Amino acid sequence: MLEKIDLSKKMDKDTYKQVIGEQSERLGLLQRELRTAGIPVMIVFEGMGAAGKGTQINRLIQAMDPRGFEVFANSKATEEEQLRPFLWRFWTKTPADGRIAIFDRSWYRQVTIERFDGQIKEKNLPEAFQDILSFERQLDDGGMVIIKLFLYISQEEQKKRFKKLEDSKETSWRVTKDDWRRNKEYGRYLEINEEMLQKTDTERAPWSIIEATDKDYAAAKIMTLVADRFEAALREKAASKPEVSEKPPVKEERYQNGVLSGVDLTKTLTKEEYKKEIDRLQKRLEFLHSEIYRLRIPVVLGFEGWDAGGKGGAIKRLTSHLDPRGYRVNPTASPNDIEKVHHYLWRFWNNVPKAGHIAVFDRTWYGRVMVERIEGFCSEADWKRAYQEINEMEAHMANAGAVVIKFWLHIDKDEQERRFKERQQNPAKEWKITDEDWRNREKWDQYETAVNEMLVRTSTTYAPWVVVEGNCKYYARVKVLRTVVDALEERVKACGKK
Amino acid sequence: MLEKIDLSKKMDKDTYKQVIGEQSERLGLLQRELRTAGIPVMIVFEGMGAAGKGTQINRLIQAMDPRGFEVFANSKATEEEQLRPFLWRFWTKTPADGRIAIFDRSWYRQVTIERFDGQIKEKNLPEAFQDILSFERQLDDGGMVIIKLFLYISQEEQKKRFKKLEDSKETSWRVTKDDWRRNKEYGRYLEINEEMLQKTDTERAPWSIIEATDKDYAAAKIMTLVADRFEAALREKAASKPEVSEKPPVKEERYQNGVLSGVDLTKTLTKEEYKKEIDRLQKRLEFLHSEIYRLRIPVVLGFEGWDAGGKGGAIKRLTSHLDPRGYRVNPTASPNDIEKVHHYLWRFWNNVPKAGHIAVFDRTWYGRVMVERIEGFCSEADWKRAYQEINEMEAHMANAGAVVIKFWLHIDKDEQERRFKERQQNPAKEWKITDEDWRNREKWDQYETAVNEMLVRTSTTYAPWVVVEGNCKYYARVKVLRTVVDALEERVKACGKK
Repeated sequence: MLEKIDLSKKMDKDTYKQVIGEQSERLGLLQRELRTAGIPVMIVFEGMGAAGKGTQINRLIQAMDPRGFEVFANSKATEEEQLRPFLWRFWTKTPADGRIAIFDRSWYRQVTIERFDGQIKEKNLPEAFQDILSFERQLDDGGMVIIKLFLYISQEEQKKRFKKLEDSKETSWRVTKDDWRRNKEYGRYLEINEEMLQKTDTERAPWSIIEATDKDYAAAKIMTLVADRFEAALREKAASKPEVSEKPPVKEERYQNGVLSGVDLTKTLTKEEYKKEIDRLQKRLEFLHSEIYRLRIPVVLGFEGWDAGGKGGAIKRLTSHLDPRGYRVNPTASPNDIEKVHHYLWRFWNNVPKAGHIAVFDRTWYGRVMVERIEGFCSEADWKRAYQEINEMEAHMANAGAVVIKFWLHIDKDEQERRFKERQQNPAKEWKITDEDWRNREKWDQYETAVNEMLVRTSTTYAPWVVVEGNCKYYARVKVLRTVVDALEERVKACGKK
Repeated sequence: MLEKIDLSKKMDKDTYKQVIGEQSERLGLLQRELRTAGIPVMIVFEGMGAAGKGTQINRLIQAMDPRGFEVFANSKATEEEQLRPFLWRFWTKTPADGRIAIFDRSWYRQVTIERFDGQIKEKNLPEAFQDILSFERQLDDGGMVIIKLFLYISQEEQKKRFKKLEDSKETSWRVTKDDWRRNKEYGRYLEINEEMLQKTDTERAPWSIIEATDKDYAAAKIMTLVADRFEAALREKAASKPEVSEKPPVKEERYQNGVLSGVDLTKTLTKEEYKKEIDRLQKRLEFLHSEIYRLRIPVVLGFEGWDAGGKGGAIKRLTSHLDPRGYRVNPTASPNDIEKVHHYLWRFWNNVPKAGHIAVFDRTWYGRVMVERIEGFCSEADWKRAYQEINEMEAHMANAGAVVIKFWLHIDKDEQERRFKERQQNPAKEWKITDEDWRNREKWDQYETAVNEMLVRTSTTYAPWVVVEGNCKYYARVKVLRTVVDALEERVKACGKK
């Protein structure tokens, strides 16, 4: 692939000045149009060491309005970042609609430099490539423009540049032993990069190889290419028909009598049984919490369920004996202004727990396939795609070592009515019940169908759904705690054996 | 101070249950009222090791709605945090209006644990206390409620708790050598804490000592105390008269013929002089940029000036040869929704540069004493207080080693008109000029008076204002670059000598 590239390409000063002049103006204009159209863009700079990534990024941003972009330099992951799944630091940096994020090195570090350095095991490579591909596909599906540039220079050119940097005492510190190693073993490093380029060159996020021997040639090519992609994105957006959001009621037959209809809601515990058991489980959980901290196991617990299904009470019993430094409850309301202009998974990525910490989500990313589906807040294509996206996100967390469990707190319609009325009569709980709750209740059947489909499509071995029989609060709370305790117990034991 | 505290206080189970029941309900209610009233709260937990901070925080948050608070555990600063002024990691965590931030250890670490451990020099203590006091004063003036709790146990009690933790193999790792050292030298550590309590016990942010031997007693006291402070804050807010924002035109005589009237706007450079000089300065700056990176010097450059005064052009020449990994341009527009519900300095604190990096601000925190003052976006008390607040912020940055320079790009009224008209006639620049620019122009005299006052009140040795004669763009750009180059040159030399 790369050996076919002509690295001798040059551009004379006059042509360069003319091209840059034209393209700068064009870029400035297009950047404003992208902002108006609300199209987000990510531009990735990868390539050989000393190929001039810094210089090229700087020339590109000179043409743009600094109110619209950010540059992220991605060296080795920091302590904080190492404690999270590897895509975390990139997901959290995905730009809002209408904004541009420029990455100096990116999520490709793992499958290039870190692979060369042996920091990632060969057996983990397929997974890493898979994660990268689904990351880019998900963003593209969400409307992101992804521009990937690979700056290429020859072994000799690189050697010359390293030497020049080393010759001056002010810049010699910039050339590291690792740089030299990649130059000495240029062939092997090139092979790794070629494989990366081939495996991740997709239709929607293609790689562009930039011949970077001549900086002016490279700059002109990059600017023209970026402007072309901006223009294409604007054209595509203008041509796309607005999604018709008709909200046909959810009533797919095969999911009408699904998992939920088989749940045995008569299960109960007496107060005495409850007290004894909850006390034992809380003590055990307190101990396990300290064990998972010691073993650096991240834990993700998602809570969904009917309104008044008992999520809050269950979460309270779960956390009441835990050290607050090691857990966080993330409540999920309607997205705020900032969240609305990001990918729908972005706000959840922001709250992915550190290794050794527990993240409890009170309502979750499953809103996409429930309320957003039923209320028509997203298109049919959006929520249908979401099952896979969610499975991929949870798989990524699980691959990073996380225990992932999702609870559906299930009650029947009569029990809900009873609880709603009780809340209305209790001044301390009155605020918990709104007109919206009553309105949602009218859509019970639609929700039931959607939940049945969700449970089937997103219950996986690495992130199972646990349906909790919730008519008896005592029973429900004990089941939640026991499920968590058992899962942590098992994981801690497994870690101990390694 | 502390020896007068009776550490034998206890509470029996029944009283505890009753108090907690009442206070929990009260807290839940008050939290919702605080949210409605838009009052932000910070609760600080400090005190002796093993005094039960974690347990107490957990009991407190069980009574609150997780949608309204966050808990921050503050151990040693991370790599990222160490590269910034020490208050950065707390400023960025100050809660939005109506929200609560709970700190498990806080900005007091520096003057307690780190002082005991010798990580901070005694000669830097007065500065550290000063920074803490102004941090809290500024937040209080901005409407923040600050609740500070000191959990106190005796040397014997602490020893007993450490031993108990050590006795179990699951918890023994929690007790460190440092913990034991602070127990062995309890007297010395206590003295340090007493000094801290005395120096930072202010009327608006007082310390409450919590006798923490008995956990139930402590929990009941904390909850009651927090609820009382919430209630007092609500009462105070209800009683405060809304600021009358009359916008009397700015025309303080003593600032009418100030600094700006003496600026010599006839200074010019020819195109040839400009080209030669700018080229030399850019090369020099490129070199210095790499030196400040090596020496870990942070640089803060603020740009203010008349509309069309040439800020954008000057910033472009300043950055065009720099490595984008080492600088960032932060444009300042009207605050967005998130910024509006924080202290006005919060968004600038978020962009404080890392050591070794340059942060350029295109418009700055000085908006408070210019546009906000003139348009009545803040009260008279607010902008009058701002001079000190800004000086304190810049002093904090300078104390952390930053080079801080502010530029005022000055042109006269005729030159502005000429540039406005030129922009209107140029399709590529038309978007830069809006009706608001013309409206601001009508207030030229008010702005001039405000700027004169600002220049006098906030030009300091550690963060000087540089007025740039801007009628000739060539002259202005060279002056900006030369000022930056000279300042960095001097600082790099000074660092080299150490």
